[in-house]
Amino acid sequence: MSKVFVTGHKNPDTDSICSALGYAALKRGLGVDAVAIRAGEVNKETQYALDYFKVEAPELVQSVEEKQPIILVDHNEEGQAVDGLAAADLQGIIDHHRLGGINTANPIFVHIEPVGCTATIVAKMFDRWQVELTKEIAGLLLSAIVSDTVLFKSPTCTQQDKDAAEKLAGIAGVDLKEYGMAMLKAGADLGDLTPAQIAKTDSKPFSFGSYKAIVSQISVMDTADILAKKAELTAAMNELCKAEGYDLALLMVTDIMEESTELVFVGEPKQLIADAFGKDASGDSIYLPGVMSRKKQIVPQLTEAAAKL
Amino acid sequence: MSKVFVTGHKNPDTDSICSALGYAALKRGLGVDAVAIRAGEVNKETQYALDYFKVEAPELVQSVEEKQPIILVDHNEEGQAVDGLAAADLQGIIDHHRLGGINTANPIFVHIEPVGCTATIVAKMFDRWQVELTKEIAGLLLSAIVSDTVLFKSPTCTQQDKDAAEKLAGIAGVDLKEYGMAMLKAGADLGDLTPAQIAKTDSKPFSFGSYKAIVSQISVMDTADILAKKAELTAAMNELCKAEGYDLALLMVTDIMEESTELVFVGEPKQLIADAFGKDASGDSIYLPGVMSRKKQIVPQLTEAAAKL
Repeated sequence: MSKVFVTGHKNPDTDSICSALGYAALKRGLGVDAVAIRAGEVNKETQYALDYFKVEAPELVQSVEEKQPIILVDHNEEGQAVDGLAAADLQGIIDHHRLGGINTANPIFVHIEPVGCTATIVAKMFDRWQVELTKEIAGLLLSAIVSDTVLFKSPTCTQQDKDAAEKLAGIAGVDLKEYGMAMLKAGADLGDLTPAQIAKTDSKPFSFGSYKAIVSQISVMDTADILAKKAELTAAMNELCKAEGYDLALLMVTDIMEESTELVFVGEPKQLIADAFGKDASGDSIYLPGVMSRKKQIVPQLTEAAAKL
Repeated sequence: MSKVFVTGHKNPDTDSICSALGYAALKRGLGVDAVAIRAGEVNKETQYALDYFKVEAPELVQSVEEKQPIILVDHNEEGQAVDGLAAADLQGIIDHHRLGGINTANPIFVHIEPVGCTATIVAKMFDRWQVELTKEIAGLLLSAIVSDTVLFKSPTCTQQDKDAAEKLAGIAGVDLKEYGMAMLKAGADLGDLTPAQIAKTDSKPFSFGSYKAIVSQISVMDTADILAKKAELTAAMNELCKAEGYDLALLMVTDIMEESTELVFVGEPKQLIADAFGKDASGDSIYLPGVMSRKKQIVPQLTEAAAKL
């Protein structure tokens, strides 16, 4: 049998890269010939984690061949998955997102839990199946939890994520808070990102009713720098809609320290955004205090608003 | 909060009734106010199990109200689910079938495993979460495993199903083989079923490409009686297609003793059936030796044939 690929979504975040590495290691521990791949570029935050724990990034595979055995982590929507998924041999899904409508011919293993991070589920599986966690894999799974829960500040964070992170930090031999802040800082560094790059940071496509949307998120220590370039950003987002056929593009500019999001948007219908968040959406952005989670505070609201539009 | 309903599919089989009762008991053991319901009539086999273990059938609820909290067991396709699901508050799925394309707004708990029976998964959860199994619930979960695996003869049966059944038989205090055969015999008794009733036994709707089909299954000790009425059966199946808008109706007449299936069918395109099973499908039935499982030996083949048609 050919190797089973374990992969996160396109535009991978730290959870997608690290849970793929972790779940592939777990499967190998159980005797399965599995290898992690990635469906896109490694971001700065993830690179910090990989460098810190001296692990190489998974191989980049943007399109899989027909019949390729594959396991998805951290996503379960075909629109977010590596190219070629429809003709591949999907064997499993480990995730923490909404059910995204995938159909399979045969029964497969699916485990989805409403926790803050896929890595939390993967860490629990190492326990349940009694496979030993190395220091490196523990460190990467910890990094994913810190990233997805923004150091436990996100409303998606559960006690299970906190418990898993503490245990993983012990195995990885790092101070959780200190390591976590350093990693988040590395990820929040805008460096020389162009407006087009910012507009696509951690982007994911969604269907809201009949509308096609792309929702991106960038986490920063302070939103001022990025919002000063709003005109350039919305121009880049309009370009993105045209080039890739979206009705709407949304960018969450999330302030990690202040725990809030400035939601920048272009496209139509703006009424969808107004209805979803109960705000005047006639401009090009709205301020959402307390909002940090796309999964819990943005996507369900847009899904429900679309159903009523 | 209102009670969480736990329910199997329409036209419930023994797994759908017993896993609903079992998972509701598990959730109550974990402090959740859950109750099993059923989305259709109890069949003879299930009634035998309920009578044997002196458990009342769950309440019949054919349509759920808006926002009703609900957990699905033994299915994950909207077409098979209780009416009203789309507007209900879907909170979880425990199943062993193919992924059927459900979308949710929020992340929910989903556990699907390619084992022979949902009850096997439920039994393992009692273990994992250390909730005590009563004799009655153990007996019902055992009955579901015997039913879905046809006493371990079905190709869907895994070692996990066998292990769970042995353990459950011990707790329930029954001889596995003896009880299992008695239950299967009770279910295989055609009694005074009309051709229309036979045509809808354990029926489930499926979409194969753009075709709408209904696939029913009746398990018997000997197919002769039922096949003697084939003309009346196919007439009833044609009626069913007309009345409910199916392109195809298929009935698996499965011989438990011989481990084979006579697949009776009406509707178009027959080429789909010919392609799926590599047989001449110009008549109204084909003989499929070794075939006992709709999930593993019928549905995937039709799904794949439809993708190529």
